[in-house]
Amino acid sequence: MAGLGDLNMANPVFVTYLFYAAVLGLKTLFMSLFTVRHRMGNKVFANPEDAKGLQGKVKFDHPDVERVRRAHLNDLENVLPFLILCPLYLATGPAAATATTLIRVFAAARLLHTVVYLNVVPQPSRALCFMVGMGVTVYMCVQILLATM
Amino acid sequence: MAGLGDLNMANPVFVTYLFYAAVLGLKTLFMSLFTVRHRMGNKVFANPEDAKGLQGKVKFDHPDVERVRRAHLNDLENVLPFLILCPLYLATGPAAATATTLIRVFAAARLLHTVVYLNVVPQPSRALCFMVGMGVTVYMCVQILLATM
Amino acid sequence: MAGLGDLNMANPVFVTYLFYAAVLGLKTLFMSLFTVRHRMGNKVFANPEDAKGLQGKVKFDHPDVERVRRAHLNDLENVLPFLILCPLYLATGPAAATATTLIRVFAAARLLHTVVYLNVVPQPSRALCFMVGMGVTVYMCVQILLATM
Repeated sequence: MAGLGDLNMANPVFVTYLFYAAVLGLKTLFMSLFTVRHRMGNKVFANPEDAKGLQGKVKFDHPDVERVRRAHLNDLENVLPFLILCPLYLATGPAAATATTLIRVFAAARLLHTVVYLNVVPQPSRALCFMVGMGVTVYMCVQILLATM
Repeated sequence: MAGLGDLNMANPVFVTYLFYAAVLGLKTLFMSLFTVRHRMGNKVFANPEDAKGLQGKVKFDHPDVERVRRAHLNDLENVLPFLILCPLYLATGPAAATATTLIRVFAAARLLHTVVYLNVVPQPSRALCFMVGMGVTVYMCVQILLATM
Repeated sequence: MAGLGDLNMANPVFVTYLFYAAVLGLKTLFMSLFTVRHRMGNKVFANPEDAKGLQGKVKFDHPDVERVRRAHLNDLENVLPFLILCPLYLATGPAAATATTLIRVFAAARLLHTVVYLNVVPQPSRALCFMVGMGVTVYMCVQILLATM
């Protein structure tokens, strides 16, 4: 029977998942560093102890900082569920070609989402990237439901 | 020895986990769509480029929008840890009946939590749903600790 | 071939991961309880129905409450990615001693991060804890990339 035990380094779909999980994990983690850069550059901080040490001030509405923070939260809302649910979908034994394509489409959509968000590319670019990413995860959830019922 | 390799489609507890992981994953993802609907309906947006394109304004304190966002964040804080920690608990080889019950109780508590939160059902309904959900995850963590020590 | 199937209770590195996943999971969940305690103690709430029932008021900028909430969000941004990515790193078959050390260092850094954040220990203590934690997860991602290319 298909299961988590099939997910090993000899399984090309799992290797694809591993590769993009690392890429998306790094991308999501690096959002923190972007926030720090914008906080430093604009001298606006969330904590009094940081503001004091760096001759800045406490401010929660700097547009550049808040934009990065919104993009980061959007990753927590979308990338983390994908990273958790994708191996569960793989455990149901989907066709390798379909699963590989879905993983690549999700990764591309979320990388583009960040580029579009941070560079203020006009809508509907961001909405499109968001919907494609969410569409992939929703599809995987539906396939899990079908496989378990 | 018990482990992640036991988690396959022939294992009824894992199938139960998969089913509710998909249900809870979908529920959590759909919180974004509720936020979008309230943003559209009230014409309040978080990004200037969205407000401009949709003849709305930038506003961070609309009560309906913020309520959905709080419910969503509460899911990130509770549903995601459960989805990560439950398979680890299953990897320690718990009794199937106990594990199945815990998964169902968690899922019911979190689905109810959202209903109660979005419909402003008087307290202590929401606190109760929250505590039951957290209680399940805490119990699983304690069982993992006992199994590994 | 190395894979998720190797992650069982006879594998000491996996047992180490399980133990610290439970510890860090509990720690992250307990941040909610700290928030509740500060909300109760200062009678400031995020929802009108809570404020009404507990004779408090709705307020989103109480410094003690917001500090705990920032520490909690920081855990969602760092602890959850680690908990997801670490077993993927283990699935690539790293040296046991290296993996064990990395897991312990991450856990220590994140536990200290919370202590330092909530007790307002002067910088660079918090920045250091944060960078060590992130460094471990970044290293694991890079190792996954190397193993899959």
